[in-house]
Amino acid sequence: MSDPLKKPALFRRACLIGIGLIGSSLARAIRAHGLAETLVCHSAADGSKETAQKLGIVDEVYADPAEAVRGCDLVILATPIGANAALVEQFGPALEAGAIVTDVGSVKMAVVRDVSPFLPDAVHFVPGHPIAGTEHSGPEAGFAELFQNRWCILTPPTGTDPEAVTKIRTLWETIGSNVDVMEAGHHDQVLAITSHLPHLIAYTIVGTADDLEDVLKQEVIKYSASGFRDFTRIAASDPTMWRDVFLNNREAVLEVLQRFTEDLTALQRAIRWGEGETLHALFSRTRQIRRGIIEAKQAYGSGIAKFETQ
Amino acid sequence: MSDPLKKPALFRRACLIGIGLIGSSLARAIRAHGLAETLVCHSAADGSKETAQKLGIVDEVYADPAEAVRGCDLVILATPIGANAALVEQFGPALEAGAIVTDVGSVKMAVVRDVSPFLPDAVHFVPGHPIAGTEHSGPEAGFAELFQNRWCILTPPTGTDPEAVTKIRTLWETIGSNVDVMEAGHHDQVLAITSHLPHLIAYTIVGTADDLEDVLKQEVIKYSASGFRDFTRIAASDPTMWRDVFLNNREAVLEVLQRFTEDLTALQRAIRWGEGETLHALFSRTRQIRRGIIEAKQAYGSGIAKFETQ
Ligand SMILES: NC(=O)c1ccc[n+]([C@@H]2O[C@H](COP(=O)([O-])OP(=O)(O)OC[C@H]3O[C@@H](n4cnc5c(N)ncnc54)[C@H](OP(=O)(O)O)[C@@H]3O)[C@@H](O)[C@H]2O)c1
Ligand SMILES: NC(=O)c1ccc[n+]([C@@H]2O[C@H](COP(=O)([O-])OP(=O)(O)OC[C@H]3O[C@@H](n4cnc5c(N)ncnc54)[C@H](OP(=O)(O)O)[C@@H]3O)[C@@H](O)[C@H]2O)c1
Repeated sequence: MSDPLKKPALFRRACLIGIGLIGSSLARAIRAHGLAETLVCHSAADGSKETAQKLGIVDEVYADPAEAVRGCDLVILATPIGANAALVEQFGPALEAGAIVTDVGSVKMAVVRDVSPFLPDAVHFVPGHPIAGTEHSGPEAGFAELFQNRWCILTPPTGTDPEAVTKIRTLWETIGSNVDVMEAGHHDQVLAITSHLPHLIAYTIVGTADDLEDVLKQEVIKYSASGFRDFTRIAASDPTMWRDVFLNNREAVLEVLQRFTEDLTALQRAIRWGEGETLHALFSRTRQIRRGIIEAKQAYGSGIAKFETQ
Repeated sequence: MSDPLKKPALFRRACLIGIGLIGSSLARAIRAHGLAETLVCHSAADGSKETAQKLGIVDEVYADPAEAVRGCDLVILATPIGANAALVEQFGPALEAGAIVTDVGSVKMAVVRDVSPFLPDAVHFVPGHPIAGTEHSGPEAGFAELFQNRWCILTPPTGTDPEAVTKIRTLWETIGSNVDVMEAGHHDQVLAITSHLPHLIAYTIVGTADDLEDVLKQEVIKYSASGFRDFTRIAASDPTMWRDVFLNNREAVLEVLQRFTEDLTALQRAIRWGEGETLHALFSRTRQIRRGIIEAKQAYGSGIAKFETQ
C-alpha cells in the first residue's frame, strides 16, 4: 500500500527506448531520485536486455517497443538518432493520450523531422539533449551522476504544451542538470562547433595516424601522452551514434568545417613562411577561451573525472 | 662533513637554465632523489627568480647564465627552444671540461643545430625530451612527479660519449621515466604526429571559435563539455614554447598536416554525399588506437590526473 503522506513521483510509468550509456545513466538517475513509480525499457539486442535486467536498473525489459510504451506517461528515446523514425513508427500508435515523449539525441532538427510525423496528436513531444557523456557505450558504462552540473538543452517546437516542457525541465533539474531552452536549429549550429567539429577532427587525426606504417604507428601510441591521446579518447566514441550525428547535421557541420579549414590553411601558411608573430598572436588569444571555460565551471566533467583518474 | 658511507650524488653541481614548468619540475625531482649535491639555476625574469628562491627548489639563482654554469658538471636547458642559441653562446665559454649539457626541448634537430656550435669540444651534449607536460607554465606549475611513468627520448648525435649518455639516462630513470634513444630527425617526425599536429589543430579550432560573434562564443563556452573543452586545454599551452616548436619543426609538421588535410577533405566529402558506411568504417577503426594506448598504459598521465580532478 502506498504511503498517503508521500509525494507522488513525477511520472507514473516511464519507458526508456534504448538502455546504452545515456539511457542507463538516466535510468539510474531516475531511480536514485524516485522520479517514476515504475521504470521500464525497450532493448532490441539480447545482450543489453540481459545486462539491463542483471544490473537491476529498470523494473521490466520489453523486446517490443509498442509493448514497452503502453500505459506510460513518459517515453525517453535514448537510441542513435538514425534509429528513431523506425522505432517511433512502431510504438507511436501504442502511446496513451497525454503522454510526454522526449529524447536525448545530439542533433535536434533531424529528430523533430523524424519523430513528429509518427506521434498521435494527443502526445507531447519535448526534444532534449544532455551535454554530458563519455567515450564509453552500453548499459554498463552508465552512472547516475553523469548529468550533475551539466547542461541539458530542450528544443520544444512552438506551440508545445508548456506543462509538458516544465515536467521535462523538472526531470533534468532533479537529477542535477541546468536546463536551457532554445530553437532546434540554433542548437544544431552551436553543437556543430562545440561537439561535432571536435569529434570529426579527432576522428580524422587518429585515422591519419592509423594509416601510418606499423613501426611509426607503434611509436605514436607509445608517445601519445604529448597531445595525441586526448584526441584518441574522443575518437573512441560510438561509431553508430557519430555516423548518425554527421548524416543528420550535415549543413551546420559543413559550414563550421569550412571556417576551420580556412583558419588551418592560414596557419599552415604562417608556419611555411616562418611568421612567428602570427603564430604567437593566435596562441595567446586561444588561452582566453580556456579561462572562460574554467570560470564557467565547465572545465572538468563528472564523467571525465571519473574516467581520467582510474 | 659528508658521510663517508653515503653514496655520492650522480652530479656534483647541476644548473637549470630556465625554471618554468619543466625546469622547476626537474629541480623538484632532482632534489627529491638527491641527484645533485648542489642545484642552481639561471633565470632572466625577476618574477621567476624570486619565485624560484621563494619556493626553495634550488640553492642559488643567477641572473647571468655564464655565472650560473660555472663549476657545474651538469647543465640542463629548459627554455623555449628559440632562446637556446643566444643562451649557449653566452654561457658556452664558461663551461668546464667534461661537463654534460642536456636539454628538454620538444624539437631535437633544431636544438642540435643551435646548441652544438657554441659548445667547447671537451663538453658532452646529450639532447633529451621528456614526453610529459601540462598546459600550465612557470615555476609554480611544476611538480616532482611530472615525469613518473612517462617516456623520455634522448637523441645523442653519433659519437657522443656513451658514459655521458648513461648518466643522463640514469638521471631520467631515477626520477621515474622510461628512456628511449633515437635519431633526432626520427624524433621530430614522430612528435610532429603525436604532439605538434594535435596542438596545431587544437589552436586552430579554438581560434575558429574565438572568431565567432560574441553571443555564439558565450554559448560555445557554456556547452564546451561536449568535446570542445578538451581542445581548449591543449590550446592553453604556452604561446612562446609552441611558436618555437612550429618554427623549428616546420618540414615535419607541414608534411603531416598535408596528410591530415587530405583525410579531412575525404571525410568532408563523405558527409556531403551522405556516405554513412565510409564514416562508420573510419569511426570503428579509430577505436583500436585508443585500445592500444590503454594497453600501453599511456592513457592517463600523472600530470593529467593531477589537473583533471581538481
Ligand atoms: N554518448 C554521448 O556522449 C552522448 C551525449 C549526449 C547525447 N547522446 C545521444 O544519446 C543517444 C544514445 O547514445 P549512447 O551514448 O547512449 O549510445 P549507446 O551506449 O551505444 O546506446 C545506444 C542504445 O540504443 C540501442 N539501439 C541502437 N540501435 C537500436 C535500434 N535500431 N533499435 C532499438 N534500439 C537500438 C542500443 O541497444 P543495443 O545495445 O541493444 O543495440 C543501446 O541500448 C544518441 O542519440 C546520442 O546522440 C550521446
Ligand atoms: N610544457 C610542456 O608540456 C613541455 C613538455 C616537454 C618539453 N617541453 C620543453 O620544455 C622547455 C620549457 O618549457 P616549459 O613548459 O617549462 O615553459 P615555461 O614554463 O614557459 O618556462 C620557460 C622558462 O624559460 C625561461 N626563459 C624564456 N625565455 C628565456 C630567455 N630568452 N632567456 C632565459 N630564460 C628564458 C623562462 O623564464 P622567465 O619566466 O624568467 O622568462 C622560464 O623559466 C621548452 O623547450 C619546451 O619545448 C615542454
